[in-house]
Amino acid sequence: MKSMILNIGDELLIGQVVNTNASYIAKILNTYHVTVELIEVVSDNKEEILQSLIKGLHYDLVIITGGLGPTKDDITKHTLAEFMNDTLVENEIVLNDIKNLVESRKRTMNELNRQQALVLSKADIIRNFLGTAPGMIMKKDNTVYVSLPGVPYEMKPMLQEFVQKYVVTKWKGQIIHKSVFVFGIPESELSVKIEKWENALNKDGIKLAYLPNRNLIRLRLTSVNIEDAENKIQNHIQELKSILNKNFVGEEDWNDTSDYPLAKVVVQILQQQQLTISFAESCTGGSISSMITKIPGASDVFYGSVVSYSNEIKIKVLGVKENTLKQYGAVSKECVEEMAIGIKNLMKTDIAISVSGIAGPTGGTSEKPVGTVWMALCFHDKVESKLFQFGEQSREQIIESATFNALSWVLKKLIEL
Amino acid sequence: MKSMILNIGDELLIGQVVNTNASYIAKILNTYHVTVELIEVVSDNKEEILQSLIKGLHYDLVIITGGLGPTKDDITKHTLAEFMNDTLVENEIVLNDIKNLVESRKRTMNELNRQQALVLSKADIIRNFLGTAPGMIMKKDNTVYVSLPGVPYEMKPMLQEFVQKYVVTKWKGQIIHKSVFVFGIPESELSVKIEKWENALNKDGIKLAYLPNRNLIRLRLTSVNIEDAENKIQNHIQELKSILNKNFVGEEDWNDTSDYPLAKVVVQILQQQQLTISFAESCTGGSISSMITKIPGASDVFYGSVVSYSNEIKIKVLGVKENTLKQYGAVSKECVEEMAIGIKNLMKTDIAISVSGIAGPTGGTSEKPVGTVWMALCFHDKVESKLFQFGEQSREQIIESATFNALSWVLKKLIEL
Repeated sequence: MKSMILNIGDELLIGQVVNTNASYIAKILNTYHVTVELIEVVSDNKEEILQSLIKGLHYDLVIITGGLGPTKDDITKHTLAEFMNDTLVENEIVLNDIKNLVESRKRTMNELNRQQALVLSKADIIRNFLGTAPGMIMKKDNTVYVSLPGVPYEMKPMLQEFVQKYVVTKWKGQIIHKSVFVFGIPESELSVKIEKWENALNKDGIKLAYLPNRNLIRLRLTSVNIEDAENKIQNHIQELKSILNKNFVGEEDWNDTSDYPLAKVVVQILQQQQLTISFAESCTGGSISSMITKIPGASDVFYGSVVSYSNEIKIKVLGVKENTLKQYGAVSKECVEEMAIGIKNLMKTDIAISVSGIAGPTGGTSEKPVGTVWMALCFHDKVESKLFQFGEQSREQIIESATFNALSWVLKKLIEL
Repeated sequence: MKSMILNIGDELLIGQVVNTNASYIAKILNTYHVTVELIEVVSDNKEEILQSLIKGLHYDLVIITGGLGPTKDDITKHTLAEFMNDTLVENEIVLNDIKNLVESRKRTMNELNRQQALVLSKADIIRNFLGTAPGMIMKKDNTVYVSLPGVPYEMKPMLQEFVQKYVVTKWKGQIIHKSVFVFGIPESELSVKIEKWENALNKDGIKLAYLPNRNLIRLRLTSVNIEDAENKIQNHIQELKSILNKNFVGEEDWNDTSDYPLAKVVVQILQQQQLTISFAESCTGGSISSMITKIPGASDVFYGSVVSYSNEIKIKVLGVKENTLKQYGAVSKECVEEMAIGIKNLMKTDIAISVSGIAGPTGGTSEKPVGTVWMALCFHDKVESKLFQFGEQSREQIIESATFNALSWVLKKLIEL
């Protein structure tokens, strides 16, 4: 079964919003062996939507998101009606859902709410319990078109419902994805090192993809309709483990794919080694903690953090000496070392990391420009510190780089690289 | 100038990676009046890439990302050569850059690194100082094609370089985007309320778009080549302010668009009201702090947080009574109220929010199922608490919902809604 995803919305084409819907839909469809061959993003423009709808006839399934809100910038529904040679009619169930939703928000219905109840007369409806725009399932020639709202938290349960009703029952064949994580070896070097292994993999019909993210590489193994695939993949992974040794840092099931692979690997290895961790975050502002706590099971290994944005908190809660701040400043080797020791003692963990830096856009000096970040790592009774210069990046990029490097450092320590 | 973005990579089509490149590129191009009319995502497959390249001939500019890594799943470069009737040749400057990069990482060059130095003979090169895949600028008929690596932090500076050299100089006309934030009023109601205002806006040739995100709506005003646009837009915004009153919560310049609009509005209003804030985060794990500290200027209003994942930290650092935890548990009205008072006293801020809940996937009980979240807000000397049930969502979604609701609550308090 081949599909296309069509996301409608000017906000996507001017870059105001990141298209998380496409990746979510792709992941769900893929799980049920529906291949996504094309993702298109077009504007709220009749002609462009029509062109994409026509292109959709090449596929078995087209999932459309967006362009269904109550306000004037939405024209998708009328374009769909034209394309399907259908008319828009008021649907009682939908109208009732909208009434209930509006009342639950202690508002009164207006004309725009009412228009939301208009649907294509021949469409099957997917009810929306979190918003006012209903979903529609339509058919033209041999292609099924599904129109869903663009708001992610409304779209997700509706897609799930469609998949349960229309896809799962027709699901044939078996696709298996499995990923492994490789750390501390560049992609080009890795590729040479595992060339033979990869050839053997290909002989078994298993496809390999490299997905690097800084110095962590996700290797994805994919099999489509291969007999005994689970076992075969598992055997190849075992072999890879022995080839890569320390650089092999973890595995991941497809239905458990994380957007935070580095944090996931760190949590997994801390669990395996039964170690605990805490953070003292200044310029990262909670970003390291937040990444670790997004991983299920984080509470096994993570006790807590202090986000010490003000100097007073560094002194009062973390025990940084007033004199250290006066003499060296908050962004200094001395300060981060005291912060790391302080948080480790406070939280009673095996490992602690502290970070203090200048994330910008203001606050830089010629001596300590924006992007200057000090970190200290305390493992058992040893403290080490490092200076990073992340240079001319945006505030968000500097925070992200610092977070990534802090977790990388922990991982290096853990696997003794 | 009309453009298309072409992102190549299976990882995007199976939803393993979110396509942040497209939104980044779209935003940059838009700033320079290059309209993005189409975004396409296709797999690492020669035929599909070729089809999209042919489609690109309808546009003035095609920005291509991905498919340039050193490993075997990359075939973009050969497809480009075929499409351009060109051949691949080794480029000395690129080869030298790669050598330097590889050496700086204390590695040795291998054959795959060397192949990265192959570029189309007629292409202009964009050097890559953060990775091994160079960028290429090519021309076919009247269309300029730019091929860039898919790794975001390599791609971004290379795109900037291309834009500086090839786009800025040819930039004609003027596009102005300006956004305002509206809070606490549903989209359909807002639309009725500002209908007249919107009509006046349209008469001036200014386009309006609604970008709702839960109960915060970004209204984007766009003008293209309109005389005195800045002033006209500013006047319309002033009028909108008086129509919406308290529900008008902020403004945003285009070059300052934030991915965290709610956090941005909260920081802006705290600054205006000269108030300070702190957080005691349990299940949100640093996510609220991290969102606030992504906003430039956060240090004016945010002093710090404690991420109290373990009960011990709740007691020791935040001063929660041992008996409270025993009698009511960590996810309780009593606990969050003590947490909020504790963090407010510790950080000496005007406002404090505390959050404790069950983010799952495990840890739920019939009495307190996954998704149960208690929050307390302490403003001056008053503490209030609220119970939320976020229900059957993933861990990440529960954390996100809790974070959003915590910040919404602060905003409501601040504007006295």
